[in-house]
Amino acid sequence: MTLKERCYPFAHMIRTGKEEGIYPYFRPVTRTWGPEVDVGDRHLIMVGSNDYLGLTHDPRVREAAIRSLSSYGTGPGGSRFLCGNMALHEVLEDRLAAFVGKKRAIVHTTGFSVNLGAIGCLLNSDDVILCDREDHYSIFEGCRSSRAKIVPFPHNDVEAASRKLAHAVQKHPDGVVILITEGVFSMSGDVAPLADFARLKKKYPNLWMYLDDAHGLGVMGPGGKGTAAHCGVTSQIDFIMGTFSKALASIGGFIASDDDDIIEYMKHNSKTLIFSAALPASNVATVLACLDVLEEEPERIQRLRDITRQVREGYRRIGLAVRESETPIIPIRIGPEEKAYVFAQELFENGVFALPAVFPAVPKGQAVIRTAYMSTHEQRHIDYVLETVDRLARKHRIRSVDLPESEAFLEPCDFAAAKSCGAQ
Amino acid sequence: MTLKERCYPFAHMIRTGKEEGIYPYFRPVTRTWGPEVDVGDRHLIMVGSNDYLGLTHDPRVREAAIRSLSSYGTGPGGSRFLCGNMALHEVLEDRLAAFVGKKRAIVHTTGFSVNLGAIGCLLNSDDVILCDREDHYSIFEGCRSSRAKIVPFPHNDVEAASRKLAHAVQKHPDGVVILITEGVFSMSGDVAPLADFARLKKKYPNLWMYLDDAHGLGVMGPGGKGTAAHCGVTSQIDFIMGTFSKALASIGGFIASDDDDIIEYMKHNSKTLIFSAALPASNVATVLACLDVLEEEPERIQRLRDITRQVREGYRRIGLAVRESETPIIPIRIGPEEKAYVFAQELFENGVFALPAVFPAVPKGQAVIRTAYMSTHEQRHIDYVLETVDRLARKHRIRSVDLPESEAFLEPCDFAAAKSCGAQ
Repeated sequence: MTLKERCYPFAHMIRTGKEEGIYPYFRPVTRTWGPEVDVGDRHLIMVGSNDYLGLTHDPRVREAAIRSLSSYGTGPGGSRFLCGNMALHEVLEDRLAAFVGKKRAIVHTTGFSVNLGAIGCLLNSDDVILCDREDHYSIFEGCRSSRAKIVPFPHNDVEAASRKLAHAVQKHPDGVVILITEGVFSMSGDVAPLADFARLKKKYPNLWMYLDDAHGLGVMGPGGKGTAAHCGVTSQIDFIMGTFSKALASIGGFIASDDDDIIEYMKHNSKTLIFSAALPASNVATVLACLDVLEEEPERIQRLRDITRQVREGYRRIGLAVRESETPIIPIRIGPEEKAYVFAQELFENGVFALPAVFPAVPKGQAVIRTAYMSTHEQRHIDYVLETVDRLARKHRIRSVDLPESEAFLEPCDFAAAKSCGAQ
Repeated sequence: MTLKERCYPFAHMIRTGKEEGIYPYFRPVTRTWGPEVDVGDRHLIMVGSNDYLGLTHDPRVREAAIRSLSSYGTGPGGSRFLCGNMALHEVLEDRLAAFVGKKRAIVHTTGFSVNLGAIGCLLNSDDVILCDREDHYSIFEGCRSSRAKIVPFPHNDVEAASRKLAHAVQKHPDGVVILITEGVFSMSGDVAPLADFARLKKKYPNLWMYLDDAHGLGVMGPGGKGTAAHCGVTSQIDFIMGTFSKALASIGGFIASDDDDIIEYMKHNSKTLIFSAALPASNVATVLACLDVLEEEPERIQRLRDITRQVREGYRRIGLAVRESETPIIPIRIGPEEKAYVFAQELFENGVFALPAVFPAVPKGQAVIRTAYMSTHEQRHIDYVLETVDRLARKHRIRSVDLPESEAFLEPCDFAAAKSCGAQ
């Protein structure tokens, strides 16, 4: 089979979806205004962004980015390992370590790069990685790069993880065993039961815990310090990883640990760190400014929680199934993929920007519209979105069907989120 | 072995290197001024940056970055696939495709992410990838992610590649066969013999060609259009990949192709694209502004070529072995690792910022100081650097020993550039 033959059926499917007017992805946003965006001549309310604290348009954050440009220029000029390391990176590392309650941190250029580089260099083929089936793809890519044995467990299922852990420890007594989970899952908004996971350490003192808190940072816990703080288990989590592209209004990521030697090892062995250009100063300065705002205005986090409580209540009143959670990610559970595409399209035509998540991001036939809220959403935004969702839910007869817990395991080899896009 | 035991020896070695005052990496730059930088209270001439055209401090480029902040904010808010796609990304894609002479392009958040995502999704276990032994690590990570058979050939050796290709085509008649090389190699400054590689297509019409032109873009060929244009083989290269963190003064990368279906396939199947936050607007606007400057001021490229010719002549006069090339990367061939560390440290103490590349970036015992030049270097910079290199080369008796062609194959499992750092 040639490469063209391999790609054609997929491209054809995408084209069909576009022709049918239900292809929802890669919509070109022409301008953002915090919780509102323009797409061409349409003006919409954004309820899908990860800019949870609404800081991407904060003038203090923008000014910090601009100031850094005159000190450091627009580009890094090289990897941090060689010529691209800035004092500013190290200032941010100290700040982040203190923020999440760890001794040291390492800043990378993307969050993907943190998981791939850190997991890839820490572990090897003697080791076992237990991971939640709904963990982010970058975690699986890091696991594969490490060549360790990957043991997925059902989503947020501590008991299943415990059984698999007992088996792994018995079978690989000399290898490192690590459990990797997210704090807040990006599609469902579910929070990991970190306290229960941490208790496994009592029985297995050699178990390492690695937390990807991309969606928890800035949102969960006191002062937005993240899901480990929220669950009161910071000291029991060995690695806290986070990203800057959500609440911290930038791009990049970090990993934090209390162990100097392990940090030093990762700093020189994470291939993505060594072989990627450094995060530019303006993106670093953005994160520092966001941390300032977070400390000065903890009420932003409270406001976000108030908004999301109000939306959850609203969704319930409409008759939608909503799981209990404190996160700003609240999926609207639709079911069939086709229906989700149509629902998203009608939301869009009614001025609401939110996108469907379909298989394999969620199980087959359990498609959702991922809505996510920001602390800068105003009452009029919330009212309008609830009103629109209500109207469309009635029209499409979407009612309180709580779908079963996801069992989807993100198979790294055939992601095709738009696969059913053209299906009738 | 516990994780701590695994990391300790390495961390100890790094500490020893630091105590001995010869550890050269991760130097925290406190300010950059184009070709000059501050490290604490030291002011140095930078001759290691990849900012070849000196655009990171260009006021027009900086202004473009600043302007984009008010239209789009500091962060992307999500992946391009979902909520983070901006019209600006698509403007840049069209611009880049036209620039390198291809029909379409896809912008990613890092160059690493392009190679990993594109190679990883295009190929599978039926396929064969021929790659230069000195190809960038991200290429090998993409190859591994694809599960294709990896066949490395000696650096820039077309004859060896041809033999291996014949064997691969015979052994895997149904698989896709692709040859991946860089245009300009980052450590040696060597240029790939692309015309010779392209000729292989006459005998093997199904052979695909993939070019990583990270260090060629903006530097090589007419108007800086890259190494394929330089070699006159643009139409024969199926994939042209480039990054923004070198001549284009930003961060990120792209892949370009003439095939709509393949582009559409990659856009929906490159995991790093789907599962990474989008490149922020300011970083995108930076690249667009750099392309403007490149078109308006082609003399910048000429100036860079003049400077590097002058430096090559200077190095030769000093008695250093310099290979013929047109690239701004000119390694000073030192030999023993320890000597390279000492040499780099003395350069630093004399106000010149350039770093050693040791095994496995280069073969064992063939360490180099990687110097790279910028079109904004002034005559006084060049004179001072040549004078300093001359003095130190005499002191350390570094003379015209052209080291053999590199045979290093970057083993993905045990990178430790600073491994010999503490050795006596």
